[in-house]
Amino acid sequence: MVTKAQQLGISLRPHFKTHQSREIGQWFKSFGVTKIAVSSLAMADYFAEQNQSDKLGWQDICVAFPFNPREITLANKLAEKIELTLLVANIDSAKSLVDGIRQPVNVMIKIDFGYRRSGIDFQDNAQIDKVINCLSQNTLITFSGFMSHSGHTYKAKNIADIGITHQECLGRLALLKSHYRNLDVVYSYGDTPSFSTQNSFDGVDELRPGNIVFYDFFQSHLGVCKTDQIAVALACPIIDLHPQRGELVVQGGAVHLSKDAMQLEGKTIYGLPVMLTEAGWSGPISNSYVKSLSQEHGIISMPAEYVRKFKVGELVGILPVHSCLSADIHTEYLTIEGKRISKFRTY
Amino acid sequence: MVTKAQQLGISLRPHFKTHQSREIGQWFKSFGVTKIAVSSLAMADYFAEQNQSDKLGWQDICVAFPFNPREITLANKLAEKIELTLLVANIDSAKSLVDGIRQPVNVMIKIDFGYRRSGIDFQDNAQIDKVINCLSQNTLITFSGFMSHSGHTYKAKNIADIGITHQECLGRLALLKSHYRNLDVVYSYGDTPSFSTQNSFDGVDELRPGNIVFYDFFQSHLGVCKTDQIAVALACPIIDLHPQRGELVVQGGAVHLSKDAMQLEGKTIYGLPVMLTEAGWSGPISNSYVKSLSQEHGIISMPAEYVRKFKVGELVGILPVHSCLSADIHTEYLTIEGKRISKFRTY
Repeated sequence: MVTKAQQLGISLRPHFKTHQSREIGQWFKSFGVTKIAVSSLAMADYFAEQNQSDKLGWQDICVAFPFNPREITLANKLAEKIELTLLVANIDSAKSLVDGIRQPVNVMIKIDFGYRRSGIDFQDNAQIDKVINCLSQNTLITFSGFMSHSGHTYKAKNIADIGITHQECLGRLALLKSHYRNLDVVYSYGDTPSFSTQNSFDGVDELRPGNIVFYDFFQSHLGVCKTDQIAVALACPIIDLHPQRGELVVQGGAVHLSKDAMQLEGKTIYGLPVMLTEAGWSGPISNSYVKSLSQEHGIISMPAEYVRKFKVGELVGILPVHSCLSADIHTEYLTIEGKRISKFRTY
Repeated sequence: MVTKAQQLGISLRPHFKTHQSREIGQWFKSFGVTKIAVSSLAMADYFAEQNQSDKLGWQDICVAFPFNPREITLANKLAEKIELTLLVANIDSAKSLVDGIRQPVNVMIKIDFGYRRSGIDFQDNAQIDKVINCLSQNTLITFSGFMSHSGHTYKAKNIADIGITHQECLGRLALLKSHYRNLDVVYSYGDTPSFSTQNSFDGVDELRPGNIVFYDFFQSHLGVCKTDQIAVALACPIIDLHPQRGELVVQGGAVHLSKDAMQLEGKTIYGLPVMLTEAGWSGPISNSYVKSLSQEHGIISMPAEYVRKFKVGELVGILPVHSCLSADIHTEYLTIEGKRISKFRTY
């Protein structure tokens, strides 16, 4: 990630919502990364708090999620400690910040380049101007730029599709940038499919890939990575074997893996089984997939000859469909060297 | 639940995997419930530990999940403190218990009446006998009965379907019971759809409904409950409004609600929005549903006239599709009287 951003000459602000771990964050620091994005103020607090004990914390954090006016107290607390960047998606949250913020803070405007999740449409200059004007009413607020997330690259079927969506977004960014050419602000752009597969990011000042840290089956199926680049797996104890119906039953359900699924060739797939090995894990076991998840049970469809290689009480690995959601559930990782790595968890 | 079980003359062992809260457990105690089922040894430990501090803990706990041989240490620790019932789904886990258990423990055999998730087929007396014989080799083990979960009632389309599946399961139970008529053991049976809608449980000694404590949209759609009986909702801050496209955006994503969904009339539905009120919440808002979930965002489809009633920073409630999974994510509940209730959470 770091090398690619350097080669592109674009600033990197990796999104830590996928791994959510201070220790994994340190690996990024060792590559020279100095700023991050997170998906909630609570997560920003987790990565900032590290400051106090060991000076390893993050001083420059962007909460890349539309500001929720109910969290003004936490926003003020954090802005006192670190260089905090918040995101507003509309005039209402801008007003609430103008009214409530008591510390210097950067604010970016969320722009919708076509994903249609949240933010102001890239062509709606009237609304954008209204928000910029509103933000200027509080001198503690620095309007620092525009942020977009091309989440619709996830709806692509292959790399060519990703390229088409990406080019369309860059075209829209150019329009926006041309309109606001007199402003000295940052254009922050991010999503793992485009970061991983594209080589032109004209007009982009900052990139925020997140999922890339682990990847997952979704990304490999899209062609964004190879399955051997997927860097996280759920180790599941086997509790029952049914070779006659080609099934392994594991203690590994929706509460461990998350219920995100892919529909492929008429099948619903919740993950790809792998053999755990001393050095990590094998490639996906042929013709095998997690076919259903209840609260604590997972059922893996697997040819009988492979089912017979396992015993009750052994572990099988599962590569997640969506690593962000699977990782979010847990409080720790175990490295293949046997080291435990803690992570953020709230709610 | 208690009244119905009393009227049926059948012992009630409610499943606490849905609420996972010691405090909610006390409400059951006040109705005379003395024994519970849980879905993991860790959860059993949580409900048993209460013993030490305030004598309000549970003395009789069944882990209604196939025994995982990797957890023998925790099983021994718990069996020392409480009357513990474990479940075996095959000869391998029976052997591991016979080899590893050091405390008196009850063991039940998981029987598959047609759900095809785990357990021994109800007609496979050879395997069942093998497991019973195996268990008899350790005098600390009391073989206490047969357990089934008719999870395939969840595949029903309506109450009539539930009745058909239920009657089929009772017929299979009768066959099993007739074969083992010389054994003085318990037949434990459980699932919320059949418990809530059926009135004949011939041959059943113990019932283990779980989801009934909260219900959810899945159950109401099936006809098992009314929507006004759904007892849990996720309160989500509104972060963006799009009346022109009939959408509300909330801070309430897959990591808060879980990604369990229902397919209805060509739509994927992740939850039903309600208005939060002083006294709780309204009925479902007409023609509205949660249409998509990303990691932290939820998008609610809602007619423009209702979208306009909300403001950024206000809360909207979401009735979950599957309350067990939504509740599992969180560490606390907030009652409508404003009291916080803690719950179990692991991983």
